[in-house]
Amino acid sequence: MTLSLYSDEQYMREALKQARYALAEDEIPIGAVVVMDKQIIARAYNQTEKLRDVTAHAEMLALTAAANFVGNKYLAECTLYVTVEPCVMCAGASFWAQVKRVVYGASEEKRGFRRYGNLLHPRTELVTGILADECAALMQEFFTQKRK
Amino acid sequence: MTLSLYSDEQYMREALKQARYALAEDEIPIGAVVVMDKQIIARAYNQTEKLRDVTAHAEMLALTAAANFVGNKYLAECTLYVTVEPCVMCAGASFWAQVKRVVYGASEEKRGFRRYGNLLHPRTELVTGILADECAALMQEFFTQKRK
Repeated sequence: MTLSLYSDEQYMREALKQARYALAEDEIPIGAVVVMDKQIIARAYNQTEKLRDVTAHAEMLALTAAANFVGNKYLAECTLYVTVEPCVMCAGASFWAQVKRVVYGASEEKRGFRRYGNLLHPRTELVTGILADECAALMQEFFTQKRK
Repeated sequence: MTLSLYSDEQYMREALKQARYALAEDEIPIGAVVVMDKQIIARAYNQTEKLRDVTAHAEMLALTAAANFVGNKYLAECTLYVTVEPCVMCAGASFWAQVKRVVYGASEEKRGFRRYGNLLHPRTELVTGILADECAALMQEFFTQKRK
């Protein structure tokens, strides 16, 4: 199998790298990257524990960093890659930023936004299940460890 | 009429002050304060234009500031006062923070969270309509001005 350098899988691998940084810091292992014109313009991982701030989800930090990079709060040409289905808060942020695409890996039935309907911007394309097993396995690893 | 020093109305007046700062800076005029043990521990107003960041809603900035103040990401003893019904993003943030109460002024039928059901934490009490007319009037003033 050949993988394009610019495939969703490749960008999700970068988001997974971020998620692993979170795991190493004992944070819920979720990572995100923002891509514009095939370039990664922002990378972030969940830091809610370190920053003691519930708003410091990977997606929120990545969207803020991306907006700083482009100098515009609207990210209409950007794709947000995130390892796990975004929560309501992060879906809401991507709505306001009007991101072009949201691509996530593993579903999150309990805390994911999709149980509340489509909270994304009407213009936003949603792609799901990219490297879902790897993304879910990281979460599993974290929670198994926590229960020990 | 006598007003308690610690009434919801009094705290909403402080949130309205914040909203007026937003208006003065040509931001959508929404303000918020967070109260714990009758003390205001955080004040913020919408800064999405200035910061070019969709996540810089009054509620988000106030919740982050409050968490910094108490040194805990959970705000289970705090009340969030905000002049306008929170959006999905901000409702999601207050869910994660498990705030004790959310008190808002004016309803927001289009962008408010309530059309999506109760997105708040099961433990969170919701109070609505406090100084609603004043809160709505500020929004009206902003949008009327914008259309000119």
